[in-house]
Amino acid sequence: MRPLDYMRNGRKLVMSIWFTEKQTQNFGITMKINKTLHTEQTEFQKLDMIETEEWGNMLLLDDMVMTSVRDEFVYHEMVAHVPLFTHPNPENVLVVGGGDGGVIREVLKHPSVKKATLVDIDGKVIEYSKKFLPEIAGKLDDPRVDVRVDDGFMHIAKSDNEYDVIMVDSTEPVGPAVNLFTKGFYAGIAKALKEDGIFVAQSDNPWFKADLIRNVQRDVKEIFAITRLYVANIPTYPSGLWAFTIGSKKYDPLEVSKDRFHEIETKYYTKELHKAAFVLPKFVGDLLK
Amino acid sequence: MRPLDYMRNGRKLVMSIWFTEKQTQNFGITMKINKTLHTEQTEFQKLDMIETEEWGNMLLLDDMVMTSVRDEFVYHEMVAHVPLFTHPNPENVLVVGGGDGGVIREVLKHPSVKKATLVDIDGKVIEYSKKFLPEIAGKLDDPRVDVRVDDGFMHIAKSDNEYDVIMVDSTEPVGPAVNLFTKGFYAGIAKALKEDGIFVAQSDNPWFKADLIRNVQRDVKEIFAITRLYVANIPTYPSGLWAFTIGSKKYDPLEVSKDRFHEIETKYYTKELHKAAFVLPKFVGDLLK
Repeated sequence: MRPLDYMRNGRKLVMSIWFTEKQTQNFGITMKINKTLHTEQTEFQKLDMIETEEWGNMLLLDDMVMTSVRDEFVYHEMVAHVPLFTHPNPENVLVVGGGDGGVIREVLKHPSVKKATLVDIDGKVIEYSKKFLPEIAGKLDDPRVDVRVDDGFMHIAKSDNEYDVIMVDSTEPVGPAVNLFTKGFYAGIAKALKEDGIFVAQSDNPWFKADLIRNVQRDVKEIFAITRLYVANIPTYPSGLWAFTIGSKKYDPLEVSKDRFHEIETKYYTKELHKAAFVLPKFVGDLLK
Repeated sequence: MRPLDYMRNGRKLVMSIWFTEKQTQNFGITMKINKTLHTEQTEFQKLDMIETEEWGNMLLLDDMVMTSVRDEFVYHEMVAHVPLFTHPNPENVLVVGGGDGGVIREVLKHPSVKKATLVDIDGKVIEYSKKFLPEIAGKLDDPRVDVRVDDGFMHIAKSDNEYDVIMVDSTEPVGPAVNLFTKGFYAGIAKALKEDGIFVAQSDNPWFKADLIRNVQRDVKEIFAITRLYVANIPTYPSGLWAFTIGSKKYDPLEVSKDRFHEIETKYYTKELHKAAFVLPKFVGDLLK
């Protein structure tokens, strides 16, 4: 008998536990949990691994959905492949955050990449992703990958003219990620990038966080020659429409020549979608004006 | 004092009522309700009008979200403007379902339209949309609009070579809409359309209803020369990614010349998005193979 089944008056009662994420004060998503695999207050945040019926194993940080086995491919492919196909020869790549390893897995699909450094402040995210999300974290032990448990903001501040592509795979700007949404951080990224470098940052959603998108775009525009916003559909993230900000010193993601795309295995990204993802709904485009 | 406030031991307790739509057996959305404006079992379905904190007034049919004041523009604009800008001169338009009036409101933005007929089987949807969703239903009394409370399937069956554009704005294929997802219905639409006519139907979502999309595409392809699928982000609909099927006898929505677009006021649709909406995520495009 599973622990959630109880007998009462000779009848088996099956309890059903649901996790609800309040994505705003007045709206959320709710899903059936089969079991909680791990729960702990780390040095930096509350970490839960749950097994959900609809989405498979799922990582929560501070009660917010970070990634799930069923829909993780959208976020990880769209963070990685848009900048990596924009840059003509990405060799040295940095991922800030992203301790679940999903972005790294996608980065390694590009044969030009010689080294991929992951800097996540919370080693527990890496540890439990390897244990409970092997489909996502399974490439963290690849010889091309350098995993560091460290403060991404400080790592960026110490880097100079080093990376071809930097990807910021952070949580929301609360808790440990609050520094990763500042103009000082974007200036540090510009310094850490080579002279033709490019960076991407997840930028939340236009339905509930319009101000955040507007502010990030404004700040990045002051520092990078080319600033762009693109979107993707992620069903377990607030509003289902997720935004990503690109800051680039030289290469425009909208002007990638067709011969630059090589074959990779994906479930969401295509070379046609590479450009279509930048064609924004009118109310989203209006945020950038 | 509002009805949901109670006193206990001299303290005011504020109760909070939440509506949860189970979009699948194991996943759903949940939102705070300020009050229920109307609830009734009509001849065809359960109808609720609720005032939500996040989305404004909202229509539910059989406990499923149909439309809300805050995000309705996405669905209504994307149903209407994609086929109407594809057809070079739409004059006579039919909307099947759509008793909330949102698609009609968008149709009337096209000056070429001389007549727009709405056929909804449930007069109560029309009546209560006019009362509680005036921003959406407000154009149903326009002199160009002919509102009929009738069976859409039968109306289509009786029509011959009559319409330039037909839009199927139905509920899911349960309850009164079950006939609207059959090959017989699509054949009837082909007959009801003029020789260069075009139709669009909402086709649910690729995350939870992949089979439905695959089946609709297969059936429509057998009848129409040009069959296409496009998507839009609707946060209150399952998965946030909604699909629409186009069946067209002559005009391809991907080959609309730029001079055909005239200025209209929109919040989601743009002439660039008209084409980008057809660029599908890989797993969605794979459903059509």
